[in-house]
Amino acid sequence: MLTVYGMKSSGNCYKVQLLLEQLGRPYRWVEVNSAAGETRTPQYLAMNANGKVPLLEREPGRWLAESNAILCYLAEGSALWPADAWTRAQMLQWLFFEQYSHEPCVAVARFICVYLPPDHARRAELPRLRERAAQALAVMEQHLQSHAFFAGDDYSIADIALFAYTDKAADGGIDLSPYPQVLAWLARVRQQPGHVAQQV
Amino acid sequence: MLTVYGMKSSGNCYKVQLLLEQLGRPYRWVEVNSAAGETRTPQYLAMNANGKVPLLEREPGRWLAESNAILCYLAEGSALWPADAWTRAQMLQWLFFEQYSHEPCVAVARFICVYLPPDHARRAELPRLRERAAQALAVMEQHLQSHAFFAGDDYSIADIALFAYTDKAADGGIDLSPYPQVLAWLARVRQQPGHVAQQV
Repeated sequence: MLTVYGMKSSGNCYKVQLLLEQLGRPYRWVEVNSAAGETRTPQYLAMNANGKVPLLEREPGRWLAESNAILCYLAEGSALWPADAWTRAQMLQWLFFEQYSHEPCVAVARFICVYLPPDHARRAELPRLRERAAQALAVMEQHLQSHAFFAGDDYSIADIALFAYTDKAADGGIDLSPYPQVLAWLARVRQQPGHVAQQV
Repeated sequence: MLTVYGMKSSGNCYKVQLLLEQLGRPYRWVEVNSAAGETRTPQYLAMNANGKVPLLEREPGRWLAESNAILCYLAEGSALWPADAWTRAQMLQWLFFEQYSHEPCVAVARFICVYLPPDHARRAELPRLRERAAQALAVMEQHLQSHAFFAGDDYSIADIALFAYTDKAADGGIDLSPYPQVLAWLARVRQQPGHVAQQV
């Protein structure tokens, strides 16, 4: 059986949970408290030298890191994986957009606001993070003005990847009201069969 | 014919050039000076709302952004694309690692050192960027202690993606001498058929 090493409060880990639930694949979840240093133990680093969650264990000794790579591996061949090569390329474009232009601002703003003390020095990063988040959200808003989902006409893992932290943007003090198409898309994603909300 | 909108001095753009040369695919290169704001014109934003290079134009009106998504699209089915699903997943893992844990420090340190004036305020970011670069290089070094390349036993687009900025790390004041396996891998990549060096 597949094992996921993850932290329920992490959007990157939630992506994997959501996909597995929607695929109806059985899996074992091992909760790893990254904030308490549990991804930096010698045992964990032997599984993932980069010391991050989520991590997929296909079988003992065979591990896959990087949330969006895990989504690709699990979704390939399913209805959440576009059959057309160009649509698949668009899906990958949005997966890389998510990790480069979206997660490093939307998720990090959430981390600072939710998990660090209110007087922490990293709060100084928030204005710049929110400015960059607004740029990413504007790119998404523009795309959604003429598309229901991110890759082609159908729900795919690009939507799962972008949903995770966009749905929690308010936690980082990021207001989604200027992005009505993004709000409508979040609602469409929540209506997909087998959808589960992030519980933390 | 394929058109690449790119900037020769960008490692992300060089990745696409290197792959196209190694695949022997004809293409047209349109030089776009991102540093001079040419990715922020209305014309360019109509092609890529995220305002970045490289951008692949398959045909007028059909564009693909994100360097590593472009690599995937172009390489699929070639010798640089692993046939085995698990090896392909590992390749994607390294592509996402490159964009999340490597490029934002190794490439940004280079940008600050090479393209900004010596008294620029962003030089204050360099110590932290070099610290993060050392972490990324250590992860690569460990992998290369038991592997010749990043995905499986063969050269793939994961190597192209990681080569681009690793080969220019010294530009950002990042010393590769503590990473002998990385240096040996760089030499192996340079020996691949059809290899071309970045010219800027």
